[in-house]
Amino acid sequence: MKNSYDLVTFGETMIRLSPPDYQRLEQAGHLDVHVGGSELNVAVAAQRLGLQTLYVTRLTRNLLGRIVENKAREHGVDTSHIVWTDDDRIGLYFVEFGASPRANSVLYDRKDAAIANIKIGEVNWEETFQGAKIFHTSGITPALSQTAAEVTIEAVEAAKKASLKVSIDLNYRARLWSQEEAQRVMTKLVGVADILITTEEDIERVFGIKKDDYEEVAKVLADQFHLEAVAITLRETPSVWKNVWSAIVYADGRIYRGPSFEIEIVDRVGSGDSFAGGFLYGYLHDGPEAGVRYGVGVSALKQTNPGDLVWATSDEVARILEGGNLRIVR
Amino acid sequence: MKNSYDLVTFGETMIRLSPPDYQRLEQAGHLDVHVGGSELNVAVAAQRLGLQTLYVTRLTRNLLGRIVENKAREHGVDTSHIVWTDDDRIGLYFVEFGASPRANSVLYDRKDAAIANIKIGEVNWEETFQGAKIFHTSGITPALSQTAAEVTIEAVEAAKKASLKVSIDLNYRARLWSQEEAQRVMTKLVGVADILITTEEDIERVFGIKKDDYEEVAKVLADQFHLEAVAITLRETPSVWKNVWSAIVYADGRIYRGPSFEIEIVDRVGSGDSFAGGFLYGYLHDGPEAGVRYGVGVSALKQTNPGDLVWATSDEVARILEGGNLRIVR
Amino acid sequence: MKNSYDLVTFGETMIRLSPPDYQRLEQAGHLDVHVGGSELNVAVAAQRLGLQTLYVTRLTRNLLGRIVENKAREHGVDTSHIVWTDDDRIGLYFVEFGASPRANSVLYDRKDAAIANIKIGEVNWEETFQGAKIFHTSGITPALSQTAAEVTIEAVEAAKKASLKVSIDLNYRARLWSQEEAQRVMTKLVGVADILITTEEDIERVFGIKKDDYEEVAKVLADQFHLEAVAITLRETPSVWKNVWSAIVYADGRIYRGPSFEIEIVDRVGSGDSFAGGFLYGYLHDGPEAGVRYGVGVSALKQTNPGDLVWATSDEVARILEGGNLRIVR
Amino acid sequence: MKNSYDLVTFGETMIRLSPPDYQRLEQAGHLDVHVGGSELNVAVAAQRLGLQTLYVTRLTRNLLGRIVENKAREHGVDTSHIVWTDDDRIGLYFVEFGASPRANSVLYDRKDAAIANIKIGEVNWEETFQGAKIFHTSGITPALSQTAAEVTIEAVEAAKKASLKVSIDLNYRARLWSQEEAQRVMTKLVGVADILITTEEDIERVFGIKKDDYEEVAKVLADQFHLEAVAITLRETPSVWKNVWSAIVYADGRIYRGPSFEIEIVDRVGSGDSFAGGFLYGYLHDGPEAGVRYGVGVSALKQTNPGDLVWATSDEVARILEGGNLRIVR
Amino acid sequence: MKNSYDLVTFGETMIRLSPPDYQRLEQAGHLDVHVGGSELNVAVAAQRLGLQTLYVTRLTRNLLGRIVENKAREHGVDTSHIVWTDDDRIGLYFVEFGASPRANSVLYDRKDAAIANIKIGEVNWEETFQGAKIFHTSGITPALSQTAAEVTIEAVEAAKKASLKVSIDLNYRARLWSQEEAQRVMTKLVGVADILITTEEDIERVFGIKKDDYEEVAKVLADQFHLEAVAITLRETPSVWKNVWSAIVYADGRIYRGPSFEIEIVDRVGSGDSFAGGFLYGYLHDGPEAGVRYGVGVSALKQTNPGDLVWATSDEVARILEGGNLRIVR
Amino acid sequence: MKNSYDLVTFGETMIRLSPPDYQRLEQAGHLDVHVGGSELNVAVAAQRLGLQTLYVTRLTRNLLGRIVENKAREHGVDTSHIVWTDDDRIGLYFVEFGASPRANSVLYDRKDAAIANIKIGEVNWEETFQGAKIFHTSGITPALSQTAAEVTIEAVEAAKKASLKVSIDLNYRARLWSQEEAQRVMTKLVGVADILITTEEDIERVFGIKKDDYEEVAKVLADQFHLEAVAITLRETPSVWKNVWSAIVYADGRIYRGPSFEIEIVDRVGSGDSFAGGFLYGYLHDGPEAGVRYGVGVSALKQTNPGDLVWATSDEVARILEGGNLRIVR
Repeated sequence: MKNSYDLVTFGETMIRLSPPDYQRLEQAGHLDVHVGGSELNVAVAAQRLGLQTLYVTRLTRNLLGRIVENKAREHGVDTSHIVWTDDDRIGLYFVEFGASPRANSVLYDRKDAAIANIKIGEVNWEETFQGAKIFHTSGITPALSQTAAEVTIEAVEAAKKASLKVSIDLNYRARLWSQEEAQRVMTKLVGVADILITTEEDIERVFGIKKDDYEEVAKVLADQFHLEAVAITLRETPSVWKNVWSAIVYADGRIYRGPSFEIEIVDRVGSGDSFAGGFLYGYLHDGPEAGVRYGVGVSALKQTNPGDLVWATSDEVARILEGGNLRIVR
Repeated sequence: MKNSYDLVTFGETMIRLSPPDYQRLEQAGHLDVHVGGSELNVAVAAQRLGLQTLYVTRLTRNLLGRIVENKAREHGVDTSHIVWTDDDRIGLYFVEFGASPRANSVLYDRKDAAIANIKIGEVNWEETFQGAKIFHTSGITPALSQTAAEVTIEAVEAAKKASLKVSIDLNYRARLWSQEEAQRVMTKLVGVADILITTEEDIERVFGIKKDDYEEVAKVLADQFHLEAVAITLRETPSVWKNVWSAIVYADGRIYRGPSFEIEIVDRVGSGDSFAGGFLYGYLHDGPEAGVRYGVGVSALKQTNPGDLVWATSDEVARILEGGNLRIVR
Repeated sequence: MKNSYDLVTFGETMIRLSPPDYQRLEQAGHLDVHVGGSELNVAVAAQRLGLQTLYVTRLTRNLLGRIVENKAREHGVDTSHIVWTDDDRIGLYFVEFGASPRANSVLYDRKDAAIANIKIGEVNWEETFQGAKIFHTSGITPALSQTAAEVTIEAVEAAKKASLKVSIDLNYRARLWSQEEAQRVMTKLVGVADILITTEEDIERVFGIKKDDYEEVAKVLADQFHLEAVAITLRETPSVWKNVWSAIVYADGRIYRGPSFEIEIVDRVGSGDSFAGGFLYGYLHDGPEAGVRYGVGVSALKQTNPGDLVWATSDEVARILEGGNLRIVR
Repeated sequence: MKNSYDLVTFGETMIRLSPPDYQRLEQAGHLDVHVGGSELNVAVAAQRLGLQTLYVTRLTRNLLGRIVENKAREHGVDTSHIVWTDDDRIGLYFVEFGASPRANSVLYDRKDAAIANIKIGEVNWEETFQGAKIFHTSGITPALSQTAAEVTIEAVEAAKKASLKVSIDLNYRARLWSQEEAQRVMTKLVGVADILITTEEDIERVFGIKKDDYEEVAKVLADQFHLEAVAITLRETPSVWKNVWSAIVYADGRIYRGPSFEIEIVDRVGSGDSFAGGFLYGYLHDGPEAGVRYGVGVSALKQTNPGDLVWATSDEVARILEGGNLRIVR
Repeated sequence: MKNSYDLVTFGETMIRLSPPDYQRLEQAGHLDVHVGGSELNVAVAAQRLGLQTLYVTRLTRNLLGRIVENKAREHGVDTSHIVWTDDDRIGLYFVEFGASPRANSVLYDRKDAAIANIKIGEVNWEETFQGAKIFHTSGITPALSQTAAEVTIEAVEAAKKASLKVSIDLNYRARLWSQEEAQRVMTKLVGVADILITTEEDIERVFGIKKDDYEEVAKVLADQFHLEAVAITLRETPSVWKNVWSAIVYADGRIYRGPSFEIEIVDRVGSGDSFAGGFLYGYLHDGPEAGVRYGVGVSALKQTNPGDLVWATSDEVARILEGGNLRIVR
Repeated sequence: MKNSYDLVTFGETMIRLSPPDYQRLEQAGHLDVHVGGSELNVAVAAQRLGLQTLYVTRLTRNLLGRIVENKAREHGVDTSHIVWTDDDRIGLYFVEFGASPRANSVLYDRKDAAIANIKIGEVNWEETFQGAKIFHTSGITPALSQTAAEVTIEAVEAAKKASLKVSIDLNYRARLWSQEEAQRVMTKLVGVADILITTEEDIERVFGIKKDDYEEVAKVLADQFHLEAVAITLRETPSVWKNVWSAIVYADGRIYRGPSFEIEIVDRVGSGDSFAGGFLYGYLHDGPEAGVRYGVGVSALKQTNPGDLVWATSDEVARILEGGNLRIVR
């Protein structure tokens, strides 16, 4: 039976356009095409590691909508529950890749996308969740519109009813909503969630919680929201082209620390999402320690390939987790 | 004094994205970037032939807005009267280049662009038109929104008041408005215009006028709207890669026929616009016969370079009008 | 239930490498990457038109094998029955695109591919065919090796046992086997087939049947092999860049003629295969007349996009079958 | 009135050709096209920050000459005083981008360019300078030829007469003239200048002045030539891909130190020029401290985009001057 | 012994830069790099068909000079007698590829190239010609400069002295010299030549000979200059993308007609040169009939690959001469 | 006399395909084409520095075989003794360029290549070696097949007989043979060799020799196999994009240390080979100290250009050996 998914994710995917070779957008004669969206990124990372995943979104039935579906399918993610419409549009975003002291920057053009106009009842969540194990979404989805927020809540409630674990990434986007709105809605969502995946910065921006120590923050959140796991990704950015990347998870009353990697950055967009995908894979199979290890491993590799989506394999993740050297692999 | 323009045009410019090498959009790893918009296309053609041109539009103050201004300036078109806003977005459109039996196709994503949200009074038309000779716009501009239609009428009236000749291209776009709406507004605009540039097909779609003979159509229109010149472009499409291209103009009570070219199509988007630019250049300098000759010449060359904008020079137009052969020019 | 496929196809897919812009391979600084294989090409065409398809092959578990699976999935073709191995290799082929008087040319490097080393019993045909309607393969598959021929016969017999219709494309490849070998094996395969899709030339090369009239050839074949439908594609090549393309089918004791298209050739590789995919789609839904119409339509469009796989939609096919003009589709 | 420029610059612009992806020129199948020339680079940097700039040069009326004008106009630089000729040629230069231990290298092919053949009287300096505030040129311009040196002196004298401040960049090029010739001419030019922008190395090569301390050097120069400001850019090159970049200015009897940036080098060609553009912008608006800050800021960003010309905006410069972090800007 | 060449050619090779995809030079973000020069083109065509060839020129010892040598060697042409200098430059030329009604066009930047500054005595012709059979040059070489003309005459005389056949292509270039100068020098060169390869147009421009019939022209020339063979290439240009190509040769008192090909033009630059290379190959092996056949065959194929140099093989030439069809060659 | 080579090398060259811009192979729309093979890489490095080199291999007479020959000739390497066959194939390999923590990786597809099927007697070694000074091959060549091992031994013996010095690079490839087989064959080859070039790691893998100190290892090897020189390259890989590179040589009873370079890695494939080429050049001209200096210098530069082959010149090597700075070379 195909219909028993390990992981169902829900959110927006945009067409992403970026100039090559550190060009500024104003100079570009052509733009590289990728797709990206937090929850699709999660599904792809999890699918490549071995989970059966299903991705739910709402797409306009045109060339751009088909590209989103194609790219999800290319990685083996099931797209059979996507809601198609003849209206609206597919959101776009533009990325400029920087070099110190110029940071990467992103220009969104996502207003009035099909997913923002999704309505209660358009997705048959009961059918979608049949036999599934985890439902994941992020704070971007409810921030897209009033109705998107309603559907996100509908989804989370249906997931709980169908006995799925609910996983949430805070993913605060200041362009989409205010901190007050975010706090109101995310409190509701995290309130029913089992797993929270986020950054220190987003915790402060959404819940106003700030501590000297991120481990303490994780603990506080887990207690406050009765979460079984709180994962926090950690990034140092000594330069644009070289970052240090790690994560911790708080679960079972203790902290598990993931490995730390010095990363030569090819494309850091989507790394938090691939962490989430790797975390959910590891967590589902072997608990929080495996979760944080797979999460850090797959998201470290994600940052070495262009695009929001990770192309690493589970063997490659294993290799770097075992401390593989940097010689040519022949 | 820089401020005495030969030609002022007004309308929308979009970022245009197209896959190379006859790829379908779904296959494309990268997209070529151009800008295009009917009235900018007109200005560029006229400027390259020798007119001093000014282009008026409304742009969002972001990377995409700057690209539009840059590309206009690159050709020498004056952009100093563009209205800038922090709101809205820059419209986009996607082109797929075809091969028989697959026609070229275009997907617009232009809703809620900055130009569509332009309001009466945002452009100081009196200052804009000071010393200018011709004002040109097309049926696309009023079709963008209610307020864009109001501003178009405001512009046309201000132009007449400032003693400019008014030139209109019908440019009917079925995705933007109905034939009824188009007829209502275009009747008003053409009613005050001096010059009409269009196709047989658009005359039928907008005014419901259809005759056996396009020369007759031109005459009827000129009489009905008291126009001093009506130019009609003529295209035969035996195949996607090879078209036959010509035009006629009715003025001074007679028909002037332009030359006819067999064209090997590199990119036919924007050819009607470069015809208009060439026509206005020739017409202003030497009357309708020169107009139709320069119009056909520059727009024939336009179809041999990628992008909406023409890159030909006035020497090159002269060369093909004189019947230059197809040997290598050394 | 996902497992009820309309169409199951079986054969080899290779990585295809081709220099861009009519370069010769010796000049090329980079090569475009596509995948192609007759039976995958068929599945993709059928899937895009609306059939549920499953593609069976044998792939080496490496980067190249994954590319083949990815590209099949991208179009929605099910790949869950692919046989994976750690041994062997993925075949490659190189295409040089020509211009008159230089024909397109192909260099194969497919020896010892994983599919050539497939063995009886590696595919569970009974499970694969459960609920399916048509099985399709071509003369390339049995030509790959002795064991591939055995598995092809195994598949055809299992298909008949499971009450699928069997469709065969002769697809004679002189580099792979002699005419004698081809005749021996294809006689067996066509002997149990219901549908034959081929060209006049292959009929002569494989079965030695030559008539003044291809309609007569179709009839003779249908009678000799008790086939319910024999489809023959027809190509005229006045030049490398412009071909005329059509097809006929003999069924129900009569000839159905498909439309004929003048085609501006972007990439003609795989056109016979997309014809087969379109034919099977139309035939399954509406009988032989629909078959030949959809077959010609989708394969005409295939020749206007780069790559072996067709990217057209069923709407686009409908548009050209209705005689759509060659103006820009906006 | 358009004709009141903040800054007028004068010099040569070449077409620049460079292989992508760290290829050597001998390997390259294609070359990226940029334009570059010290004084145009200055104008573009200043224009993007907010000055009204005019660029004077002499160009051959052909495709390459038009490219130079186009690219200047694209950034909003006024080109209306360019001297056009039917003779001579446009200079070219080739850049190979290196990686440690291979330094970047440049091959010039600029002999007999149109600018080198400029003659006294071809530019109407009086008209050019009307209402302008600063004139800038560099030591490259007089080094191009005897007549170019004469016109440079003519320009500097006309600038002083028209009450412009004169800014000079030493820019010593050993391939163009000897240190003796340079010293002779530059002494004359710097003798009438108000602002000098240069490097320690060029001061030593042109004036033979060498001190333990670059601040001392600046002071000595300012005193010797009665300059109101002497700016010196400072670069450390621990590796080809990572440099440290800063500058100081001596003015009002004291040293102002600019910020220092660790730069991940995308393209360092033209950084001294964009420093000059930024310096003149800041200096004109707010004095030497603003000058050195804007100079370092805009030239730090310049090194992160391909090409000689900077594409940063004044907001982006402000952001890094305020110590903006290296996270993604969304 | 390597040193016995079948064919020695002498002339200039330039770096050729051209925008891809029918772009105008002003639009191009990058330029394709090729090398081209009439006499190198001849050598490459002859070498690929099977002659041992040696190419003589004078090159500046820099990156561009090395590219010229590399590309000659890549085809197996011997470069060991090239004269290297530290002075001067390598000529460049720019090609814009057109589409009807825009012809291809070429912009030369070849002044002061190393070859133009060659001097009598720099090439040891006696050693160069040892054991060789044919010497070939064209009217471009003596047109480059006074000294280049002197060396060309020196070469031709040395060739005759060493008992080589001398082959000349008129190749008149109006930008390089006047018809009077051309006539004066070419009369001298053709006066000692054995073989003349040219076009009707060049015969008229250089020698003022014009007849109704090109066969008559060939005969007149052969008689006047005591030539053993006069070959004339024939091109019809119904459009830029489709030409008809053939040639005739007059020898042994009669006319031999080559085959005629409809050519889909990828790049027609250098076709006359590859004709010459093919003609000399065929003529040397089998006389005038073989010459004109191989000449037309190899030059027809040349026009189907990008670049001045032909990449066809002798098998491919044979295939089209035998009337090969336009199907895919598998 | 051309036939007196300084260096003859023998081995396999493959077509190398790699995705650009750190893409994974699964993402790639096109692949860059290079050629690479240990012994060709050696010949090219030596030839560029100034040796006359000859490269021997066995190639299939098709497009891919011609590419190998072309690329060798492009650098001036003599290919006149290559053995051509109509059978077999040209090996391929795929490279993915990584970024920390993802190492570069290589996928070989070299089975059944023409060189693997070479047979005793196919190369006339006596003629090949006439007048030559050094013969070089590596442990890859005998690992390709039983017959390739036989021919390698045949070559080495013929080289000794013809009084050439024999140089061997261990180059152990675990995918090609076991350590036992390698030890057996390499013991024989190194037993007759004069020069050994390798890494510590390969010495341990092939001969099981491991010491605390690589200088000691070199000494032990030299003694055990009576070698006149043992060179060991040394690489540290703090990250994928930044390596430290050096080498030592043991000769004349002492250690010579090469310079050490911090290298910004563009492409490290083939660096050991270019070291060997540089070492043999220096060693032949000036002994072991020059050898290790030129070896390190040329191979440091090799790592800064794409492709297996080095494109540096002998001047550039000299510049970095003299401690040239990292400023722009103008």
